[in-house]
Amino acid sequence: MAYSISCSGSIALDTTRTPFKTVERVLGGAASFFSLSASHFTKVNICSVVGADFPEGNWEVFEKAGVNTEDVQRITDGKTFQYDCTYSYDLYHRQANKTELNVLGTFEPKLGEASSKSEVLYLATMPPSKQKDVIRQSKGRKLTFLDTIELYMNDLYKPELLEVLETVDGAVFNDAEARMLTGEANLIKCGKKIQEFGPDIVIIKKGEHGSLLFFDGHVVPFPAYPLEDIKDPNGAGDSFAGGFLGYLASIEAVAPSIMQLKIAMAYANVMGSLAVEDFSVDKLVSVGNKEIEKRFEHYCELLHIKH
Amino acid sequence: MAYSISCSGSIALDTTRTPFKTVERVLGGAASFFSLSASHFTKVNICSVVGADFPEGNWEVFEKAGVNTEDVQRITDGKTFQYDCTYSYDLYHRQANKTELNVLGTFEPKLGEASSKSEVLYLATMPPSKQKDVIRQSKGRKLTFLDTIELYMNDLYKPELLEVLETVDGAVFNDAEARMLTGEANLIKCGKKIQEFGPDIVIIKKGEHGSLLFFDGHVVPFPAYPLEDIKDPNGAGDSFAGGFLGYLASIEAVAPSIMQLKIAMAYANVMGSLAVEDFSVDKLVSVGNKEIEKRFEHYCELLHIKH
Repeated sequence: MAYSISCSGSIALDTTRTPFKTVERVLGGAASFFSLSASHFTKVNICSVVGADFPEGNWEVFEKAGVNTEDVQRITDGKTFQYDCTYSYDLYHRQANKTELNVLGTFEPKLGEASSKSEVLYLATMPPSKQKDVIRQSKGRKLTFLDTIELYMNDLYKPELLEVLETVDGAVFNDAEARMLTGEANLIKCGKKIQEFGPDIVIIKKGEHGSLLFFDGHVVPFPAYPLEDIKDPNGAGDSFAGGFLGYLASIEAVAPSIMQLKIAMAYANVMGSLAVEDFSVDKLVSVGNKEIEKRFEHYCELLHIKH
Repeated sequence: MAYSISCSGSIALDTTRTPFKTVERVLGGAASFFSLSASHFTKVNICSVVGADFPEGNWEVFEKAGVNTEDVQRITDGKTFQYDCTYSYDLYHRQANKTELNVLGTFEPKLGEASSKSEVLYLATMPPSKQKDVIRQSKGRKLTFLDTIELYMNDLYKPELLEVLETVDGAVFNDAEARMLTGEANLIKCGKKIQEFGPDIVIIKKGEHGSLLFFDGHVVPFPAYPLEDIKDPNGAGDSFAGGFLGYLASIEAVAPSIMQLKIAMAYANVMGSLAVEDFSVDKLVSVGNKEIEKRFEHYCELLHIKH
């Protein structure tokens, strides 16, 4: 058996411009990347919203992956959230060209029965008040993680973000967010300070430079899986979180040990690395369990120093 | 038994300004950091140059560490190489205020008998022609590594640098240098391209973001040892190289295996992390083997994922 996951957050139509190729209005958004990544490990329910322009074919993508989309609201007189960005030649620097919230702007997450019973809850980036609302609706949650962005660290949102942080088991930040929230430059200090805000488990992501796990006095650094060919960095962070929580759900880890968390971090790195190897969610849906396991074994082997 | 190391490069008097403290005219320079780091593993001979202003106390530092300074030329009518820099509040960005080459500008490295017999040769940053000259003088070398800087990748020096690269077993670059030399943005591509220039073993250092090892088709990523309190980042790279080659010399690794190189990388990370925990070479000379071993074990344990 395995726990199921409930994930609330955005579904987007992404336009991604890289020096090599541009893709337009392809499936994106935190909830899409997260759920399609985690779906390799367990049953995932997503709670999100789309507009009338949402291409039919995308439903099949979720269905094939076994992701339950019952709680995705269809707003017939609205347009799907759209995100348009350009990557620099090294695919490292992203410039947002356009962010049209559309139906996401007025989204009120509502968890259906299956979602509310899920043992693992992932709150993708949303206004903290909505994350709080989802937590309230979740009846079965035993392990709750949140992600957020710099926007919610300004004076207007920060008090509420801190309130939500107090109630979750874990939080995922990128380096800039961790520094902004804590006012610390050193990332080890950042992680420890965030733990003081509430979550026992803190993850700081540094993109191609890897990630840091904070838990129970441990500070564990992880390098990124080395990749020579990156096509589209969009969604790497949410796919990372999907691998992390997907694995923990699959082993029903309510009170995970440090080693279980390290294994989860390895799967997180694997899923993040797979996501960027193709545009949109393409690699996440085409990859098989065999390839995931192979990359997981390789990652662990790379890190292992037998002395 | 163990191989001895011969190291050619700079000895400096560093003035380092950090937001917390400024130290003036303290012992620095690539050869100092490298040799004091490697001295924990094996016998090191350094070939360098100092001026009449070189403080007497510094000789004791080398002597206590067992570093042979016979080949350090004393120029009585000259001044020691001086480097003055300021670090940003996060100790990440360095601004050079003054670089006075002084006696280093006309330095002609001469290896004495002990140095020329060393099995391991480390060429710290120098003009490529001088690195070539040292290689010529080394009779006993079985494993040769070089370091360099962006300056030697411009049109004037590059042909000679490429010539030296062809003849060495290994090379150490930071990320910016690796990108500049190869014209590639992706560091994995950089490493492989540098291998094509000659060295079988390539290391790319990313400071606090860790490092990459390239050898025999393997690309192995290493995170930096997580540190909360960094005092002075000067010399981290050369201390890293000292740990790496020090370990390989200690096990007499002429044709090291990938696992031996991984262990060496772990020691490299350990020595680099120790170096930055205090100003100048202070921590490198005060640390005991017990602390080095303890940190090495901790580093390996952090990376080990038992699944």
